[in-house]
Amino acid sequence: MSKKITIYDIAKELNITAATVSRALNNNPKISKVTRQLVADTAAKMNYKQNKLALALKSGKSYNVGVIVPRLDSNFFASVIRGIEEELHPYGYHVIICQTRDDKNLEIENIDALLNAQVDGILMSISNVSTEQNESFERILKKNVPLIFFDRKANIDGVSTVTINDFQGAYEATKHLIAQGCKRIAHLSNNRLIEIFRDRYLGYKQAILDSGLEFDESIVIEAISNVEDGRKITKSLLELDNPPDAIFSSSDFTALGAIQEIKAHGLKIPEDICVAGFANEPFTKFMELAITSVDQSPLEMGKMTAKVFIEQINKKEIVKIEKKVVLNPKLIIRESSLKKQH
Amino acid sequence: MSKKITIYDIAKELNITAATVSRALNNNPKISKVTRQLVADTAAKMNYKQNKLALALKSGKSYNVGVIVPRLDSNFFASVIRGIEEELHPYGYHVIICQTRDDKNLEIENIDALLNAQVDGILMSISNVSTEQNESFERILKKNVPLIFFDRKANIDGVSTVTINDFQGAYEATKHLIAQGCKRIAHLSNNRLIEIFRDRYLGYKQAILDSGLEFDESIVIEAISNVEDGRKITKSLLELDNPPDAIFSSSDFTALGAIQEIKAHGLKIPEDICVAGFANEPFTKFMELAITSVDQSPLEMGKMTAKVFIEQINKKEIVKIEKKVVLNPKLIIRESSLKKQH
Repeated sequence: MSKKITIYDIAKELNITAATVSRALNNNPKISKVTRQLVADTAAKMNYKQNKLALALKSGKSYNVGVIVPRLDSNFFASVIRGIEEELHPYGYHVIICQTRDDKNLEIENIDALLNAQVDGILMSISNVSTEQNESFERILKKNVPLIFFDRKANIDGVSTVTINDFQGAYEATKHLIAQGCKRIAHLSNNRLIEIFRDRYLGYKQAILDSGLEFDESIVIEAISNVEDGRKITKSLLELDNPPDAIFSSSDFTALGAIQEIKAHGLKIPEDICVAGFANEPFTKFMELAITSVDQSPLEMGKMTAKVFIEQINKKEIVKIEKKVVLNPKLIIRESSLKKQH
Repeated sequence: MSKKITIYDIAKELNITAATVSRALNNNPKISKVTRQLVADTAAKMNYKQNKLALALKSGKSYNVGVIVPRLDSNFFASVIRGIEEELHPYGYHVIICQTRDDKNLEIENIDALLNAQVDGILMSISNVSTEQNESFERILKKNVPLIFFDRKANIDGVSTVTINDFQGAYEATKHLIAQGCKRIAHLSNNRLIEIFRDRYLGYKQAILDSGLEFDESIVIEAISNVEDGRKITKSLLELDNPPDAIFSSSDFTALGAIQEIKAHGLKIPEDICVAGFANEPFTKFMELAITSVDQSPLEMGKMTAKVFIEQINKKEIVKIEKKVVLNPKLIIRESSLKKQH
């Protein structure tokens, strides 16, 4: 790597002071036009790394916005990001993205990386292992960098959030399974310290209680959101003396694992067991046995998150804006849970 | 937003010069310990945004590496990114990601955004509409920021690349279709200005010529890599007087569209028409009718790309390292092309 060219190098080259170079580069009228031109030409010739960032710091804007998501290999987060980009682009903002892979340390490091990259705001969905007492969140706020949570949020005073009504989505999906005649519905949950997963669990539970069915905590099992865990847990459920007649999963990936395992056991879907997932990942539609799921309007979520950011960044005064946007989920009923007759 | 605190504010508060504040913050021994402590305490109290970046600029490192991909909603790029992260993390580097959505302007803007964020290197897969005469690539190189291409590359002197042997992957997939008895194999291509798509086309063509079959350019059709385009083009192919008996697609997404359309026409896969895709996206395995595809070892590609970057960043001298790593693809044969007997 060659040495970075500084204003001192330009000053030396022209035999003037660094202060003059700095003023000239900033178009300070105290410096003659001739000198300004000379400095500009020399800077260009020496391939001086024009510190747009320093200028950005003065204006207080880098026009980069950081987005942090738990994972990139899900269509849900990719769609939210697209929504954020589409909404922010007309304002001249660019989106730079980090993923936490649900690792708390990576989350902290990502926040630092984005703060060091001088982003104008951080829009994030917290990791599964994050807590509301996260120092990094406080550090963002202390630096007066707008912080907005989407989907997976922590509850912090003054921080706006954009979520969907996870309780409602889970409630409707479970009610639908009950309407299909299912009486013993297992739930593949996820880390319930995270509000979205807790709310899905609570929505599921409420639907069962409201329908006068027996609620059995022993068939609520925490899963990692992947196909393998879905298979493993479903296997244990199917081997019970009293196996479930439906599975409601808080993730489409575990729902897919459940379907694979149910078939491997020679059982029929939806006749023997109904399955419903959550997130409406594209593969749920592409399967030959399409999977019932809850759509979360990720594009809309991204756009709303971006809108809240724009509102916040344009406020001149120090006012705490705390906006809580809750979008409505939409149950998409497909073959995996739709019994033709019963 | 509150005003950003600068060294001038701290200087005013303490009634000393900004230069003294600056020196104190940089632990300059010319400044007394007492003053250094006073400045540090005041800076902390005023919540001064410690400009780690300015320090990073001095050392020449931000420890942020930019990764640019065409899209985030494919498992392939998500896996490459994971490989890059896993390999770079032990070196203290963080990865910040941008997507181009195959838009040339977005690609240029992303490069600018990452350069402004002072990344130590840019690892990228170019957009479909990019060209090798891209000024942005030149700008990266002029700033002595290491640039490495993976998967979709431009050929630029001194720029290292990590790719797979796309020709070989396409050749083997087509040879496999021919071995299944297929004689009229259509190809769903993509923008062949991009080397990977050109190479897949050439591999397909060579396999046909090597097998003594007739090569028919009219059943090579350019598609956008999505399900909808796969359906649309397959529809036109099936309506030909002389329809194909196999489809080799340069994308799994168009292959999926092809399968949907073939089924909609009441034809059987693989009996009537064989289908093979490219990339080994996870859904190809999850389908009830699993799709034959070419695996590109994305994790390995990411790790290799990161290794090439580490090699390059550690070179002190200005030497042009141009490393061309070519990984071997692997044909994964599944139901969509495997005729049991014929």
